[in-house]
Amino acid sequence: MRSVSIIGVGCTKFGERWDVSLRDMVAEAGVLAIDDSNLIGEQIDALYVGNMSAGRFVEQEHIGALIADCAGLSRLHIPSTRVEAACASGGLALRQGVLAVASGYHDIVIAAGVEKMTDVSSGTAADALASAADREWECFFGATFPALYAMMARLHMRRYGTTHDQMAQVAVKNHHHGCLNPIAQYQMEITLDDVDRSPMVSDPLHVLDCSPISDGAAAVVLAPTEIARKFADTPVRIVGSGQASDTLALHDRRDITTLDATVHAAHSAFGQAGIEPKDIDVAEVHDCFTIGEILAIEDLGFVEKGQGGKAAEEGITALGGRLPINTSGGLKACGHPVGATGIKQAYEIALQLRGEAGKRQVEDAEFGLAHNVGGSGGTAIVHIMSR
Amino acid sequence: MRSVSIIGVGCTKFGERWDVSLRDMVAEAGVLAIDDSNLIGEQIDALYVGNMSAGRFVEQEHIGALIADCAGLSRLHIPSTRVEAACASGGLALRQGVLAVASGYHDIVIAAGVEKMTDVSSGTAADALASAADREWECFFGATFPALYAMMARLHMRRYGTTHDQMAQVAVKNHHHGCLNPIAQYQMEITLDDVDRSPMVSDPLHVLDCSPISDGAAAVVLAPTEIARKFADTPVRIVGSGQASDTLALHDRRDITTLDATVHAAHSAFGQAGIEPKDIDVAEVHDCFTIGEILAIEDLGFVEKGQGGKAAEEGITALGGRLPINTSGGLKACGHPVGATGIKQAYEIALQLRGEAGKRQVEDAEFGLAHNVGGSGGTAIVHIMSR
Repeated sequence: MRSVSIIGVGCTKFGERWDVSLRDMVAEAGVLAIDDSNLIGEQIDALYVGNMSAGRFVEQEHIGALIADCAGLSRLHIPSTRVEAACASGGLALRQGVLAVASGYHDIVIAAGVEKMTDVSSGTAADALASAADREWECFFGATFPALYAMMARLHMRRYGTTHDQMAQVAVKNHHHGCLNPIAQYQMEITLDDVDRSPMVSDPLHVLDCSPISDGAAAVVLAPTEIARKFADTPVRIVGSGQASDTLALHDRRDITTLDATVHAAHSAFGQAGIEPKDIDVAEVHDCFTIGEILAIEDLGFVEKGQGGKAAEEGITALGGRLPINTSGGLKACGHPVGATGIKQAYEIALQLRGEAGKRQVEDAEFGLAHNVGGSGGTAIVHIMSR
Repeated sequence: MRSVSIIGVGCTKFGERWDVSLRDMVAEAGVLAIDDSNLIGEQIDALYVGNMSAGRFVEQEHIGALIADCAGLSRLHIPSTRVEAACASGGLALRQGVLAVASGYHDIVIAAGVEKMTDVSSGTAADALASAADREWECFFGATFPALYAMMARLHMRRYGTTHDQMAQVAVKNHHHGCLNPIAQYQMEITLDDVDRSPMVSDPLHVLDCSPISDGAAAVVLAPTEIARKFADTPVRIVGSGQASDTLALHDRRDITTLDATVHAAHSAFGQAGIEPKDIDVAEVHDCFTIGEILAIEDLGFVEKGQGGKAAEEGITALGGRLPINTSGGLKACGHPVGATGIKQAYEIALQLRGEAGKRQVEDAEFGLAHNVGGSGGTAIVHIMSR
């Protein structure tokens, strides 16, 4: 099994991108990543793209051929593969790209992610997103994603004494981080009061506990580690890749305050990397709702089960804390163009490990982790990277 | 790079399956394949599933987690990945499964494909299928898939003298093969006259030149070749896997009577296999329309460019001919549940190489080929298998 490194990264501005189409965004992110890796198009062997639901958002499937085409690479006839695991589609594209290089089938592979969500009404977007849950046994009975995560939050509050202020602190922190990130959708500070006073979506989750509807694309370039330095001064090595599944429906789970898929994916990734959670210096985790970040840092092994809320409250997970989480602003403030999110996480971790994260740089970061979740935890993907 | 073999196969009946859901079909095909490989569920390391548009057909994305769940494997938390390349989604799932085993990340992998297309109106189905073409530059201007293939057919007729009777002969042959296949959607003989008298869809293509809307699922189990005989008496080795892309829109191609993606994917697969087209004993090719089979056998190198129609007319591609094509009945008669088709092709070739194809058995078949196309040729995937 060959070792794989990231030799280039690129990401568009996230937000309500009325100015561009899905094609434009993929091309922009791809060109940025190719430029960053000092490649020319002819050196690319294969493409992987994560996209959740272009079929419903922009009435277009066959996204693999589309991105090869709009990146000007169709004349090379290289393999181009779309993967989907709901909100974990980006992380899945990264993983399949890693496997493609590790397998020896391909050398230089681009893993990209994209979603254009704002070309439909918000009702249509919410319904498309609901297709990440169990349509027959959850959505048809009225469940939405805020409702599912609200149930997780309620039980976490009752069982561990987690408070809504602790959840709100996650939003406050991630908005602060977002202010330091030029690609973030929301570059504005918020307060605990702002979160509390924002409209209730599904008790206890307010609007400001939720990640937004976003447009965006991101891309990373992968190569076998043994040749990575031919392209990049500071390649970022992928030292662990874990992927796990769970029941699609929340009500079938062993415990709804733990995402077992995260636990299993993390176990697999840490096992490959040969390190422990305490060795991680910076992490991007899946904060689709504020409770999501609290569950993630527990399930990844960064804090004891039940201590995630307290960690947010005490500033451990803020820039300057012991383990800065979501320095990009996370899904909450950087935005959540579904298929792009997992690749944007890898982009952020790569910048941190290269020492190029500007005002949000974590000093001397050696190991970073990216954690991407599909649906309410039916899929989880964890990547560990090192300088 | 590890060699990969198929150690078990399973396929549901194809057709209008009002009696079952997408979940039911996946579970049925999966259980058949697992039984055939003498495995128990706990030995499975990973799942790949090809599905084009469950988001539009049954309002469900996140198909990887869904199939792990409905196969009863979610408690194992194994990675489960959905891939999509329109009508080539099944072939793509096979290829990604092959890469996963070749990479050393996984040992026992199931590659499955599924589509449930009949739960929506035919207009909705046609619109979902149109998302495999270039929505912005083809569909918005009125192009449908029959129209795109009709243009290919028209130019092929003008340039090479191909006749509609030659195309119709493809349908007549594939319906005859379908009569010998218990899983085929259509098990009825048709004549050249039947094709000619069937309603015109897009000149020169009649209804009986077109593959149908279908429901179905198929699965194959993959393992490293070095351990394949522990599970199967007659493992089928995958000796070549090729994947290629092209422009999404037909009008951007160099030549619309050649699918360059097929040419490149075949070149790659034959190169790996170290054999030539003349060494192939049986092949399943992508006959979404009758002209599709004619293009395929030319672009795969079985006959000279322009001689595909003549090959059909002379019976070369029929059972008993020099190179039997689409012994399953092809997409035309066996049916075309989009995501399942590429896996069903591998299922048929595996049966042929194992000598288990019953009344449609090709004697002493040693090398078989499966060829799966997405859209009008934006993606092509070719697998070569051997005893």
